Amino acid sequence: MKGFIDLKIGIIGGGQLGKMIAQEAKKMGLFVIILDPTPDSPASEIANKQIVSHFNDKGKIEELINQCDITTFEIEHINTEILKKLENRGKEIYPASRVLEIIKDKSKQKEFLDEFNIPTSNWKKVDHNALDDEIPAFPVVQKACRGGYDGRGVYVIKNKENIENRLKTESFLEEYIDFEKELAIMVARNKQGEIKCYPLVEMEFDEEKNICDMIIAPARVDESIYEEASKIAVKCVENLNGVGVFGIEMFLTKDKRILVNEIAPRVHNSGHYTIEGCVTSQFEQHLRCIMGLPLGSTELIIPTVVINILGEKNHCGTADYIGVEETLSIPGVSIHIYGKKEIMPYRKMGHVTIVDKEIDKAIEKAYKVKKTLKAVSKEAKHEE
Amino acid sequence: MKGFIDLKIGIIGGGQLGKMIAQEAKKMGLFVIILDPTPDSPASEIANKQIVSHFNDKGKIEELINQCDITTFEIEHINTEILKKLENRGKEIYPASRVLEIIKDKSKQKEFLDEFNIPTSNWKKVDHNALDDEIPAFPVVQKACRGGYDGRGVYVIKNKENIENRLKTESFLEEYIDFEKELAIMVARNKQGEIKCYPLVEMEFDEEKNICDMIIAPARVDESIYEEASKIAVKCVENLNGVGVFGIEMFLTKDKRILVNEIAPRVHNSGHYTIEGCVTSQFEQHLRCIMGLPLGSTELIIPTVVINILGEKNHCGTADYIGVEETLSIPGVSIHIYGKKEIMPYRKMGHVTIVDKEIDKAIEKAYKVKKTLKAVSKEAKHEE
Repeated sequence: MKGFIDLKIGIIGGGQLGKMIAQEAKKMGLFVIILDPTPDSPASEIANKQIVSHFNDKGKIEELINQCDITTFEIEHINTEILKKLENRGKEIYPASRVLEIIKDKSKQKEFLDEFNIPTSNWKKVDHNALDDEIPAFPVVQKACRGGYDGRGVYVIKNKENIENRLKTESFLEEYIDFEKELAIMVARNKQGEIKCYPLVEMEFDEEKNICDMIIAPARVDESIYEEASKIAVKCVENLNGVGVFGIEMFLTKDKRILVNEIAPRVHNSGHYTIEGCVTSQFEQHLRCIMGLPLGSTELIIPTVVINILGEKNHCGTADYIGVEETLSIPGVSIHIYGKKEIMPYRKMGHVTIVDKEIDKAIEKAYKVKKTLKAVSKEAKHEE
Repeated sequence: MKGFIDLKIGIIGGGQLGKMIAQEAKKMGLFVIILDPTPDSPASEIANKQIVSHFNDKGKIEELINQCDITTFEIEHINTEILKKLENRGKEIYPASRVLEIIKDKSKQKEFLDEFNIPTSNWKKVDHNALDDEIPAFPVVQKACRGGYDGRGVYVIKNKENIENRLKTESFLEEYIDFEKELAIMVARNKQGEIKCYPLVEMEFDEEKNICDMIIAPARVDESIYEEASKIAVKCVENLNGVGVFGIEMFLTKDKRILVNEIAPRVHNSGHYTIEGCVTSQFEQHLRCIMGLPLGSTELIIPTVVINILGEKNHCGTADYIGVEETLSIPGVSIHIYGKKEIMPYRKMGHVTIVDKEIDKAIEKAYKVKKTLKAVSKEAKHEE
């Protein structure tokens, strides 16, 4: 009979999320196979094996799943047809293709939220070629149903003139929320249905880069907001019948309502702080979920801030990092560099975690790190 | 010019210590090469590459060091001659061969401690073939100068009859210390001479197995003991001019004196608690030391207990683990399984960390884990 140590874990996607899941799996002595199109992907350096394949190659995905006892993924954009076929044959894949199908189409996500009375902003499906008559007031948000990621697939239409720059794809319009804060919460649910919330965190966006670049844990909000957000997050994952770790992104409106913005069916950037800040990291927790093991404590043991290391503007080519030494001289700092060989502007190249007993000091240090540590290209560095 | 990301780290020894150093190196995006005689050693699963070689193969050691920018080790029993030759050629090897030579001969360690007036038990070099006349009183401890590890190379001579069972090797006699507690402290010192102590911890030994099986951080001792132990530990590493992380094992005698028992010139079992318990783990810290980076905070953020997972008595063959699920149901637990394919009685197969705001609760949980989680052989499990 197979022992604990014989379990083979498959991960579709070999980026930083796959890498960090693999790191926890190797800590526990498990065997890991990655599927990713890029040879030497970040996760493949940690995993036992990589299958080099595109995410829509049904044959290769089947090969991965057949070689593994349990398969999971770090990306949403996977061919769900093949997952469904293999689920029907009894293969363990988490989260289920059914969940993935709801989440990877943002309009279906909205329908799901509405169906279960989970608060979210108002929205309506539209024909992107006939937007003029559909917009009651500006600004309004246009979202692509599929393929969005890190700020892509979202367009804020501020006025009539903006309409011509709209996304030319299947999309919907969403009420523009002039929020007070963006919040997020990680929720873990295992095969048996045991469910746990991590602490509520704040997400700070870099306006220029249009990408989340700082996570503050715990969120600096009233206890009542904290509790309500946790309840809403649990409601999302329970109604999805999800297995694994999920990231629930939310808006806190200026009139103190909480609205679910998006659900990520996987470990998430807003949960990286759990590695240093919590008893159980989101990555170990995800493995516990999909292996049907008891969930670990989600308790935050020290205030923690995470800052993304994004590729510098105009930097393309071979990745390098400057300011490492200066960054490491700040007490409480841990540097994670994902190992992506190629840098691109605003690409997520790594992150830095800062722990401090005082959250304000951790934030102050995070701003210092943001100014200090840069992901650059060797070519551009050479030119300067 | 080489960037931070281009640095190649060599590690001599591919066991659990090498694995955990490699894990931290990969977190920071570094390239790691391991040298170990066992193909598929625990560390090789994480490292970019393994050179399969014995630790006394000068040619292979030279090959490793030449391929790396900085080389370190997880074991003491290395041929120092080749290290010295390569140091003279300007290769970076930490700790230095000079330090290794002092430490790997326990009688030289004793001489070093005496030279710098660092408190240690009384001792004298003896001819093991003429012990009868050398023993002033029983019990007395006989220690082999070289090759000791995990309780091997140490023999307590309780009476005259015991003498015939003495170690038949170059050795010395040491005063038998009827200690109150065994303590340990990790000290980190980087290339520039910056030095930091981790918290003082207690080591609990399993009498039957004659091996340390529990670490309690912080040690439950008076503040004055804490301070004195830290001063002594720093004195050891400074006088060695050591670069890297060092484990200093000490006795607290019943009359409250602190005596240095042994120095380990490397990351150490008694420092595993730093992964979950401290801001910076001993493994990341070791890398910071040898790379000449600023040291990280050694602060303990939550009381932490570590229990070793040792191979069960009479279990040999293919490793497997029982009680994983039950262990993970205890809040605050993290399981580390090293990935050794073969189990042997009392072999270190993994460890479990337990964090809890109350140290007594953490200890209680550790005893529960000790009863629950077992490293067994598949063959023996099958027979039962």
